[in-house]
Amino acid sequence: MHFQNDLLLKAAKAETTQRTPVWLMRQAGRILPEYRKVRAIAKDFKTLVKTPELAAEVTIQPVDILGVDAAIIFSDILVIPEAMGLNYEMEESKGPVFPKCIMSPADLSGIHVAQAEELHYVLDAIKLTKRQLNGRVPLIGFSGAPWTIFSYMVEGGGSKTFSKAKKMLYTQPEFSHRLLTMITESTINYLKGQITAGADIVQIFDSWAGILSPEQYAEFSLKYIARICDAIDNAPTIVFAKGAYFAREEMNKLHCQVIGMDWNMDIQESRKMMPDKILQGNLDPCALYGSLDDVKRETRKMIDAFGPRRHIANLGHGLYPDIEVDKVKCFINTVKEYSSSAR
Amino acid sequence: MHFQNDLLLKAAKAETTQRTPVWLMRQAGRILPEYRKVRAIAKDFKTLVKTPELAAEVTIQPVDILGVDAAIIFSDILVIPEAMGLNYEMEESKGPVFPKCIMSPADLSGIHVAQAEELHYVLDAIKLTKRQLNGRVPLIGFSGAPWTIFSYMVEGGGSKTFSKAKKMLYTQPEFSHRLLTMITESTINYLKGQITAGADIVQIFDSWAGILSPEQYAEFSLKYIARICDAIDNAPTIVFAKGAYFAREEMNKLHCQVIGMDWNMDIQESRKMMPDKILQGNLDPCALYGSLDDVKRETRKMIDAFGPRRHIANLGHGLYPDIEVDKVKCFINTVKEYSSSAR
Repeated sequence: MHFQNDLLLKAAKAETTQRTPVWLMRQAGRILPEYRKVRAIAKDFKTLVKTPELAAEVTIQPVDILGVDAAIIFSDILVIPEAMGLNYEMEESKGPVFPKCIMSPADLSGIHVAQAEELHYVLDAIKLTKRQLNGRVPLIGFSGAPWTIFSYMVEGGGSKTFSKAKKMLYTQPEFSHRLLTMITESTINYLKGQITAGADIVQIFDSWAGILSPEQYAEFSLKYIARICDAIDNAPTIVFAKGAYFAREEMNKLHCQVIGMDWNMDIQESRKMMPDKILQGNLDPCALYGSLDDVKRETRKMIDAFGPRRHIANLGHGLYPDIEVDKVKCFINTVKEYSSSAR
Repeated sequence: MHFQNDLLLKAAKAETTQRTPVWLMRQAGRILPEYRKVRAIAKDFKTLVKTPELAAEVTIQPVDILGVDAAIIFSDILVIPEAMGLNYEMEESKGPVFPKCIMSPADLSGIHVAQAEELHYVLDAIKLTKRQLNGRVPLIGFSGAPWTIFSYMVEGGGSKTFSKAKKMLYTQPEFSHRLLTMITESTINYLKGQITAGADIVQIFDSWAGILSPEQYAEFSLKYIARICDAIDNAPTIVFAKGAYFAREEMNKLHCQVIGMDWNMDIQESRKMMPDKILQGNLDPCALYGSLDDVKRETRKMIDAFGPRRHIANLGHGLYPDIEVDKVKCFINTVKEYSSSAR
């Protein structure tokens, strides 16, 4: 496929680009009034996720409005547990809630390894988005990492400490591995399906990486991420494990091209620990609460620290919904201008 | 003062001890039925904190019941904002809620630098506890770190991202420094008062260290912790900054004796980064959800990794309320037995 803008894909392959590519985690979403309009039509979050026409529309909005170098399919990491047989509700103020969760081996009989076709609405949204993008920018597919998905399935929703999920690792390690294996297999099917449907690159989000000890992270999370990376051979892969600073040397060994960094991670140190990877990130999303001058200064500092090569600019976490669109645009434009002039 | 058990104080001074001392963050609290009884008498959490007889009683319970090598005064880090003029309520399910919070420089007129005497109920509880302990074990005093207290005062309660508090740092840095300075001065007064009242050692809790970038952490948190450490010269100081792995080399320079570690931090790496400090920690509290054999194994592994010297055994975070007392006892007894036999 010929792209008008293939900066992201070139950077992910370690090729030299004329400037640093930029996209943002959660770039499609509540910060955009145009998103909120579509969201109102959909009535609720899950209908938006499950209606390909609407999902494609909000996926493309940030390309038009913000000028990012990639679209990321609008969806939710929790479509995987749902496809496996564990329904959830998205409550406006509380976030996701699972009426039933996985507490013992007996509960495994109610779930199954998901096939890509069971997530046809995501695949349809990808196909439609690709047609509508028509090569303007690449499309990113994504999934949650098995440990993060496991946490939600065991905990039944969000949590501060995820102590139910962690308790499971300590008390029922074998059962935990069985469930993690089912999630991993579902995720491989799903990501392969996304790539077949048209995703040009995929990102694995390990949102709850930071709550495990280094040892448990290696055993219950990184091992499964590695399996997914090994299984994906026809598109570049980005792994974003929030808080997993302690696993950086291990992550350098993953069969993936790009590692996403949160804003706690020192850039120089991360370069040393992950010399084989393209790094993505890592401005603190809260930096976008500053004035336009503050945003410019912080963004330039980030560009300088990463240098002109082997970097994909992004935030260190998803955008917060109350960040002003002008600040987001300022971040993107500063990356574009400053990284062009710097080389 | 002569102590029957001064292991903690000796270890904090880098003196050799016959075994590793052990205490637990949140050792007095909901895990103990004896605590829950006193809590029921007090009716609510804040009454318990403000009634010296009851606070002393629950402070001593873990010494009797669990056999820890130190008591830590039963209190709350949020007594500081309250003494400064910002009341809060402790809601059973939600945690702390501040009806009014600090949003602009105008709000500073409603608060003041707290004097130790304004926290007389804590000082009275310390005096009473010391009398009742009668030298059995040392008593630990504590406070929140200024950044953590600032977060609550600006955010008005707990939060997942503390984005209001972080926004303040980006948008109103000078004002943030003014508020942080007021909190720091209050904290110095308070900790000095605790030591005068009888606290043998103090711990500063920076619970929200991990949400700041390394640069912001240095500017808005560590600087103020350093000021407190510099001001405290008549008792050893422990600094526990959860998630501040990126600041370990800087923390080695603090004028404090002990650094508390969370369970994400690698022990060998931390030893190298903080060669001048006694290290405290760092078993994952969730490890206590395992079987007694699991607890023993994980505790021994921790003792082996820290080695027989320059270590105070603890968890990497506070005890969770649903952890069984037997597991806590097993952790403590394993530290005692294994660290005696290992040297």
